[in-house]
Amino acid sequence: MRSFTHESHHFASGDSSPINFLDSCLSAIEAREPEVKAFEILNLDGVHEAAAESQLRWKSGTQLSSIDGMPMGIKDIIETRDMPTQNGSPIYRNHNSGRDSASVQALRAAGAIILGKTVTTEFAGPFAAKTRNPWNSAHTPGGSSSGSAAAVAAGMVPAALGTQVVGSIVRPASYCGTFAVKPSVGVVNRGGSHDGLSQSAHGVLSASLDDAWNVLREIAIRVGGDPGHQPLAQTREELARERLPRRLSLLQTAGYHQADDYGRRCLEATRTRLEHLGIEVIDAAKSEDVAELEAAVSDAQRLSLEIVAYEMLWPLRSYLDQDPSSLSPLLRQRVLVAETKSPEYYASLLQQRDSARDKHNSLRTEIDAIFTLSATGTAPSGLESTGNTIFNTPASYLGAPAISLPLFRHKGLPLGLQVIGFHGQDLEAIRIASSLEQALTPAQSSS
Amino acid sequence: MRSFTHESHHFASGDSSPINFLDSCLSAIEAREPEVKAFEILNLDGVHEAAAESQLRWKSGTQLSSIDGMPMGIKDIIETRDMPTQNGSPIYRNHNSGRDSASVQALRAAGAIILGKTVTTEFAGPFAAKTRNPWNSAHTPGGSSSGSAAAVAAGMVPAALGTQVVGSIVRPASYCGTFAVKPSVGVVNRGGSHDGLSQSAHGVLSASLDDAWNVLREIAIRVGGDPGHQPLAQTREELARERLPRRLSLLQTAGYHQADDYGRRCLEATRTRLEHLGIEVIDAAKSEDVAELEAAVSDAQRLSLEIVAYEMLWPLRSYLDQDPSSLSPLLRQRVLVAETKSPEYYASLLQQRDSARDKHNSLRTEIDAIFTLSATGTAPSGLESTGNTIFNTPASYLGAPAISLPLFRHKGLPLGLQVIGFHGQDLEAIRIASSLEQALTPAQSSS
Repeated sequence: MRSFTHESHHFASGDSSPINFLDSCLSAIEAREPEVKAFEILNLDGVHEAAAESQLRWKSGTQLSSIDGMPMGIKDIIETRDMPTQNGSPIYRNHNSGRDSASVQALRAAGAIILGKTVTTEFAGPFAAKTRNPWNSAHTPGGSSSGSAAAVAAGMVPAALGTQVVGSIVRPASYCGTFAVKPSVGVVNRGGSHDGLSQSAHGVLSASLDDAWNVLREIAIRVGGDPGHQPLAQTREELARERLPRRLSLLQTAGYHQADDYGRRCLEATRTRLEHLGIEVIDAAKSEDVAELEAAVSDAQRLSLEIVAYEMLWPLRSYLDQDPSSLSPLLRQRVLVAETKSPEYYASLLQQRDSARDKHNSLRTEIDAIFTLSATGTAPSGLESTGNTIFNTPASYLGAPAISLPLFRHKGLPLGLQVIGFHGQDLEAIRIASSLEQALTPAQSSS
Repeated sequence: MRSFTHESHHFASGDSSPINFLDSCLSAIEAREPEVKAFEILNLDGVHEAAAESQLRWKSGTQLSSIDGMPMGIKDIIETRDMPTQNGSPIYRNHNSGRDSASVQALRAAGAIILGKTVTTEFAGPFAAKTRNPWNSAHTPGGSSSGSAAAVAAGMVPAALGTQVVGSIVRPASYCGTFAVKPSVGVVNRGGSHDGLSQSAHGVLSASLDDAWNVLREIAIRVGGDPGHQPLAQTREELARERLPRRLSLLQTAGYHQADDYGRRCLEATRTRLEHLGIEVIDAAKSEDVAELEAAVSDAQRLSLEIVAYEMLWPLRSYLDQDPSSLSPLLRQRVLVAETKSPEYYASLLQQRDSARDKHNSLRTEIDAIFTLSATGTAPSGLESTGNTIFNTPASYLGAPAISLPLFRHKGLPLGLQVIGFHGQDLEAIRIASSLEQALTPAQSSS
């Protein structure tokens, strides 16, 4: 992985250039894509010309933005006017809406170079697709942003858009060893995507946190957040480096008892290292408020899936009516279960989620952020399952920003540390994660 | 106009039937459509068979819902799998998404018969389309739900879906003399439509309030509200008839001084009649809280347009880049102005709107509902302008349910009385409107 932002500091001097950067991406695609299968479609027409134009802008100091010339991948549930948007489903084979999503409209205006659409699972759900883990092709890359994670990990692009409603950004980032930011719900405009669920968000899998932040802010500067939501804050600021936080909460979540030994050792070792750095670590044993939050998110996985299933009745019921074989058995089953629920039941799920969010928000004065694992362990072997979302659902359910740091490695496979911030304070959360990355690198490793 | 709900009480006995009802709609279409131009496209394949099947169900008491067999029109910004969705724009000529919107999926499941797509202005904006007012074809039908209003008024359908973000349901209903319900923001699922703005809502223009309520509840029962929003409440209840409210607020709004003499006389006469009925009418002169609400919505038209313009930067900027001539000068200008605004400015607009909504909500204990005019007067002559939205923006801005009652008539053209309820209390608001309709009919008329 090569950070575009870090490299861009050498573009003006000519020591590096968008063309050099693009060439390294294209080389990685040529070398790795046949095995990794990160892309659903590549569209390389005109990318050299685009990089050459970007190069001229950087040399003359007239670059369009911090990501001018950045090669990118776009998860294939987000619309692009020059490529189909296929949603990992036969229903959308070769479907082209003829327009860019809000995010892609903004990225193009900022000078990003869209290389292709990255593989997603069926409608960003649990049904696995063809992508393989770049670290070991017998293992899953995670999902549903499978292709975005694998493309970044294999150096094919420095950043790719993903989406997360349950665990679809942070988990594949963890399995593939990339950085990732799943921002607060609502702060990044999702117009023109098939990512309309109430706790989902567009986010970025990337080679560095600077890359992720720059992609997010360049989108929000141009198209804001979801209609009616406060957009991403502090978009004029660079990430920069910050001092360490003072108080963090270790959240075990329901995932702790499902984590493997290596994962649990990583989490406990991180606690120890943070305390040695002078950071106060507060867990449920030390704080009643943290214990209440643990309780409020203990069932987040089941509740998130119930909310998602209800919200997907449209359009899935309509597809099912037209052709039952067009949906995987997993999604068919979700539709049938969700149809037994009433609008009133759904309303009660939202109320319960609001109450959990209130508990989380009440911790703002007590702690700077939360840390936990990004997944129960390294990527499981096999390609049928995209892995366990249990560590990802709390942040999704809370609508809070979540960052994955590729800090651990075990038997040749990566594992991430997850930092969870407060809703609407995305840059603060990324800065805390960045400071932890600095303090905790090099990675612990048992291999 | 014939109410489908009222007529459906005779379906079981055979005194009427869905086939009879459909035939009367088709006759009206044949007689009036060449002049009125309410439909962008009609799709009458199989409608007789559908009505015959519905008839069998009503006879055997197995009707799918209260709207089984109801012929309907769908505003052409809402997707239908069997007809294109053209958004009143050359950009979407013959565009078919291949799917039904959430609302149409639900309507079909409830047994409604979709006859066609009704004409909308360009992207539901101010640029007028081809539809004419059925009462006088030299006058505008209003917009942007122009075709839905005209189709209902001309008896072509008993109900049609419309959408309102500024004044696009209540105003055309007023100009065309139909009933209409613009529900609370969020309570009716807008998935699969080009109606994604933060203060917009799907609603119904109809031949009776029962028809409107039944359409709304049958949608919400099946697909709920927007993801993350409390869905329409009390969906299992019929409208029924209610006793008169005890306290109403007359809201002049910024529209009062733009209303014509006839409009102002109607409003004052309504106040007098309501007081004679024993209803206490509270206005800004009598209540500090009402005065504060008047102040909070006094600039609602300008603020609504600013919010809408910012939220439409996507996708309009993208269309503009591809072909500047594809947008009307009005929309082009909106894009250019909105692009001078920052995400922070947009955030401040939302905060101001939230504060107005809080003021409105604080009146819940003081009054039952608000009444005012639905428009500044009857439909203006000419087809270039769709009329003044000034009376419609307060309810849109507040996200509150608004109902239009076709109570007044002047020189052969109708004018509506508007009832505005509280967010989330849609059925209460419709019941109050229904009681006022009963009490205030027959219409006042100066002609």
